[in-house]
Amino acid sequence: MAAVLHAVNDLRMERVPVPQVTSERNVLVRIASVGVCGSDVHWWKRGYIGPNRLQSPTIMGHEAAGEVVEVSGDARGLAVGDRVAIEPGYPCRRCEHCRSGHYNLCRDVVFLATPPVDGAFCEYITWPADFLFPLPDHVSMDEGAMIEPLSVGLHAARRAGVRAGDSVVVLGAGAIGLCALQAARAHGATTIIASDLVPLRLELAGKLGATEVLNAAEVDVEAAIMDLTGGRGVDVAIECAGTVPTIQMAMRVTRSGGRVQLVGMPAETEPELPLYELIQRELDVSGLFRYAGCYPPAIELVAAGRVDVASLITHHFPLEQTVEAMQFAHEHKDESIKVVVTAGNGDGNG
Amino acid sequence: MAAVLHAVNDLRMERVPVPQVTSERNVLVRIASVGVCGSDVHWWKRGYIGPNRLQSPTIMGHEAAGEVVEVSGDARGLAVGDRVAIEPGYPCRRCEHCRSGHYNLCRDVVFLATPPVDGAFCEYITWPADFLFPLPDHVSMDEGAMIEPLSVGLHAARRAGVRAGDSVVVLGAGAIGLCALQAARAHGATTIIASDLVPLRLELAGKLGATEVLNAAEVDVEAAIMDLTGGRGVDVAIECAGTVPTIQMAMRVTRSGGRVQLVGMPAETEPELPLYELIQRELDVSGLFRYAGCYPPAIELVAAGRVDVASLITHHFPLEQTVEAMQFAHEHKDESIKVVVTAGNGDGNG
Amino acid sequence: MAAVLHAVNDLRMERVPVPQVTSERNVLVRIASVGVCGSDVHWWKRGYIGPNRLQSPTIMGHEAAGEVVEVSGDARGLAVGDRVAIEPGYPCRRCEHCRSGHYNLCRDVVFLATPPVDGAFCEYITWPADFLFPLPDHVSMDEGAMIEPLSVGLHAARRAGVRAGDSVVVLGAGAIGLCALQAARAHGATTIIASDLVPLRLELAGKLGATEVLNAAEVDVEAAIMDLTGGRGVDVAIECAGTVPTIQMAMRVTRSGGRVQLVGMPAETEPELPLYELIQRELDVSGLFRYAGCYPPAIELVAAGRVDVASLITHHFPLEQTVEAMQFAHEHKDESIKVVVTAGNGDGNG
Amino acid sequence: MAAVLHAVNDLRMERVPVPQVTSERNVLVRIASVGVCGSDVHWWKRGYIGPNRLQSPTIMGHEAAGEVVEVSGDARGLAVGDRVAIEPGYPCRRCEHCRSGHYNLCRDVVFLATPPVDGAFCEYITWPADFLFPLPDHVSMDEGAMIEPLSVGLHAARRAGVRAGDSVVVLGAGAIGLCALQAARAHGATTIIASDLVPLRLELAGKLGATEVLNAAEVDVEAAIMDLTGGRGVDVAIECAGTVPTIQMAMRVTRSGGRVQLVGMPAETEPELPLYELIQRELDVSGLFRYAGCYPPAIELVAAGRVDVASLITHHFPLEQTVEAMQFAHEHKDESIKVVVTAGNGDGNG
Repeated sequence: MAAVLHAVNDLRMERVPVPQVTSERNVLVRIASVGVCGSDVHWWKRGYIGPNRLQSPTIMGHEAAGEVVEVSGDARGLAVGDRVAIEPGYPCRRCEHCRSGHYNLCRDVVFLATPPVDGAFCEYITWPADFLFPLPDHVSMDEGAMIEPLSVGLHAARRAGVRAGDSVVVLGAGAIGLCALQAARAHGATTIIASDLVPLRLELAGKLGATEVLNAAEVDVEAAIMDLTGGRGVDVAIECAGTVPTIQMAMRVTRSGGRVQLVGMPAETEPELPLYELIQRELDVSGLFRYAGCYPPAIELVAAGRVDVASLITHHFPLEQTVEAMQFAHEHKDESIKVVVTAGNGDGNG
Repeated sequence: MAAVLHAVNDLRMERVPVPQVTSERNVLVRIASVGVCGSDVHWWKRGYIGPNRLQSPTIMGHEAAGEVVEVSGDARGLAVGDRVAIEPGYPCRRCEHCRSGHYNLCRDVVFLATPPVDGAFCEYITWPADFLFPLPDHVSMDEGAMIEPLSVGLHAARRAGVRAGDSVVVLGAGAIGLCALQAARAHGATTIIASDLVPLRLELAGKLGATEVLNAAEVDVEAAIMDLTGGRGVDVAIECAGTVPTIQMAMRVTRSGGRVQLVGMPAETEPELPLYELIQRELDVSGLFRYAGCYPPAIELVAAGRVDVASLITHHFPLEQTVEAMQFAHEHKDESIKVVVTAGNGDGNG
Repeated sequence: MAAVLHAVNDLRMERVPVPQVTSERNVLVRIASVGVCGSDVHWWKRGYIGPNRLQSPTIMGHEAAGEVVEVSGDARGLAVGDRVAIEPGYPCRRCEHCRSGHYNLCRDVVFLATPPVDGAFCEYITWPADFLFPLPDHVSMDEGAMIEPLSVGLHAARRAGVRAGDSVVVLGAGAIGLCALQAARAHGATTIIASDLVPLRLELAGKLGATEVLNAAEVDVEAAIMDLTGGRGVDVAIECAGTVPTIQMAMRVTRSGGRVQLVGMPAETEPELPLYELIQRELDVSGLFRYAGCYPPAIELVAAGRVDVASLITHHFPLEQTVEAMQFAHEHKDESIKVVVTAGNGDGNG
Repeated sequence: MAAVLHAVNDLRMERVPVPQVTSERNVLVRIASVGVCGSDVHWWKRGYIGPNRLQSPTIMGHEAAGEVVEVSGDARGLAVGDRVAIEPGYPCRRCEHCRSGHYNLCRDVVFLATPPVDGAFCEYITWPADFLFPLPDHVSMDEGAMIEPLSVGLHAARRAGVRAGDSVVVLGAGAIGLCALQAARAHGATTIIASDLVPLRLELAGKLGATEVLNAAEVDVEAAIMDLTGGRGVDVAIECAGTVPTIQMAMRVTRSGGRVQLVGMPAETEPELPLYELIQRELDVSGLFRYAGCYPPAIELVAAGRVDVASLITHHFPLEQTVEAMQFAHEHKDESIKVVVTAGNGDGNG
């Protein structure tokens, strides 16, 4: 049983064969929990992301955890029965990016649910052992699935160089923003300002470590940030809203010499940006594409109770209702943070 | 009233004049809390530290906080009545180290209680405004005094490059070790192993964030660390015990490519060290001298409740009993962590 | 005798008094060589730069070298007769930026020829000893004046993190671009592509280390860069042309995970920028404001013959013809790189 | 024909079969030039290195270049006839070190001439395509073989963080030291002091960029370095002599806050080291094990003429005289820098 995208608006539950392990994809995993990501919905409703286009039926879903059910001879460090988070992209291991540790930039990465590569809204997938990461017993399968968005947030905090004692603003407090917020906090940020338009998100932001939450529908966020920082601006801005005004704002509310980490991608690919701020105030502005080397520390942070990803999961659907899960996520953006599809025993907790 | 060191074992409480503000030392501070540091005791009992020697009577004490009582015209950002932590060394501001942000390496630093510079076991000192840092209302004067050892720990965690999800061992859990431990935790370390011989220290280590505490009197610490890390070793070792065996151990228990931060200084200045480990396993070993730029983030961490320095203060003495405070610290190393001398209203909480 | 700007288009040679050393500006320097910078001309022709406006008569000129003629008691490390490069901005030494080594971001910097601070198109200035850097005997006063633009180029190469073996493109090969190009080469860049519209600049670029020069009037620069790098893009792009199209191009011709260093500032302060490139290809884009800590290494590079700044000086004028020098620089942008005004013995070589 | 080490002092030229390409070692290379490394001689004369021991007959030689003569289907980026430098270790590509770009620390690396892995003193080897790096036409096979020691020197300069304008001392000017010296120069070091006991080495050091050469048989090297740096010490010390006294010296002659890069490994594995210097002057001391990601920039530097490795080759022997080549290198340490064995047409230039 798998959720296969055939065309725009045509996502179907179908029977698919159980895949066979190969020398590269040498572990068979029974899927337990899979988060619905905005990109899954985007593929479904638009049929493309950036320059990529759906060309043949493809299983969606890439935020996944499951249980190891078969291990081929050359898969090291894993055993049948291990509960694992699945890092959804494995790279070529041979290009300049792979060799230098920046494997997220590998052009030949095989990434779940990126057509034509099948994803994880299904019962079984095969995957390379070194991109499967065991979960401690007290970390649930649901939390295992959330390691994916947390890795984005962690990569953002790392690239932004958040240091202990820093002030950070997170613009946009959806699932990624809430992960970035917690990652910034885990790096020692002490002043953490979160802004959004959605009350549920801001409520969670406050619960998860924001020292100030700003509802952009009610206050002038930029003025509030400058006020909260005594006119200095924050050390680091992490932009997760993916809108042009918040990207512009990120550059204005960061202190001279500070860092702006862009995570969200707006529809407009060449917007007007405050270049004068960037240059004259000597900002460092960084892009971000997925993550590299973030699964192990992300699991550590969850296992140690330093980051709470369970609270981001607001809704569950069983695998057979994946289409309904996607529909729900699409229609209830303001009343949900993360919708998770569970397979097997259906409780997402292994 | 001040604790003046005249010679080895000759520390006296004496009346001294209230100092006058100058163009450089442009703020007059009424001292509230001052921690007793091992170096104060060392000066008292030995009369020297490294190549420096006591040559004329000098007031001891350099971990201090107090209240601003006079501000000269060119002191910016401070007002009478501000409660401040006192960064105890101000540099020349003009040498290569000062210009590059490493002002702790300035050869012309003026440092409290480093003969012939007088320290803070007294009622009033003058100090430059930019080395006084306001404390939020909810941070006590005692905590303000503890910003000094916390800055050492923070500088150690920074220089060691502790990252979120790292495993860290802190060898030696005295006041500095407990500060380093908490600083490592504030940077996101999730596995934190602490070792010491003193039960009180280990108890505090566990309370303040160590995930494992090892009593070196009871277990083979090196074997235990390797066992706890599955034979890999830790990402970072922070050596705060200042003994040759723990310094050697730090290099052996750190994973290949990991970082060793040396903080403690043993009596032996040229010990045998495991060079083969250092070279062949490509370690990075760093020294540490005081701190630079650590007071603001250290105060942030305390104010945000991310680091608990209050728990390190085990004993108080009033200013007039500074000699007794020093004597107590000297004789009860195993039953105390930090002894604080309080002046003025005597409660150390402003 | 000094070149005083009274108003837009009103630059006059006037007699001004010899300044007196003070406790801060504790050295008196007899000016020997001063470069004409585009910003000098901009002040003269427009009367403002960014938000700053000319409000009272101000001496222009900030790229300067001279000879020490008087040293007050507390100026260390300098003696009468020393030939020095003058770092044109001295900071407050007390703010967070100054304390962390990023003194170029100090809001209270005193910068030559930034109204109302007088500049160096004159015979004598006073300046703090620690912002005067002795020149070896074989480095000329003209070269000493050129340390200023070289420091901009060096700061650019440093911030861009140019590494040995990197491929670098420098867009815009005026004085700053040619300095950045040489700084990139000094950091070990092996493929160095330079582009401009002006033949003289490209000729110099080739002479000073560019491995490829591209005349944007003749070739499609973007296509040529991608072709020269086998479709990969360069490791680092340094944008010195200060035009929107070249800033956009810088982001497109940089490899995934590469670095873009913006130096030039276009008239348009909020242009459209290729955000998709920046985010999805995980670029690091950095602004730049002047420099910090660059004078000593810049002098080292010139003294060691690793950077040739003398070749950038295409024209000389004596101090009394400063207005003519400015006029020439303004009218002959394509036939000159750097115009230098020389005072005293007039040979610019001390 | 291959030089096979059977036991201590028992190196024999023997006929061996031409190896077959596999899915991992997917390229067949005809060897052209192979340098004799001290480690080859050490294996021959001692039969062990560190904890590794010769257990079965093994071909020696790991500094190699050759010509591609067969490429299997999945080897990308290479064609028959390509002239390539051979990076002598390929890692597992799957462990934490490999994934983070530090593949030199991989425990499962397959490294030429590290028993039981056969080396390159032979006619043909198979190797993975991504650890073969094409040489430009004007780079000779001999230079291709020298990319190996240059990579060590480059890794040293990188890890030491050599910056433009730095002062650097290189202690020990054998093949590795001369490569480190040139790598430091390529990173922009302007003051480069080299020391050794061997006149030939010092002569080459001077030719290849050292600004000062110190013969330790004639001068007090430590005093000379301090004198040359005005008592300040160097920014970076790179220790390539592998003796305890020079390692100790490296820590003493480095400025406060400077960096010490250890490359050479003395026989004594736990020597006495100046710990007080390391800690109190806040040094960063780094070990080094081989290199990672250095072949491409090393080739760039040679191709661009920025590093001269050809001058390090003092002697040639044909493949059939490999034993004599080893004997010569062993007996004439002071009259040779690098002895190269050439196969095929015998001129080492392809």
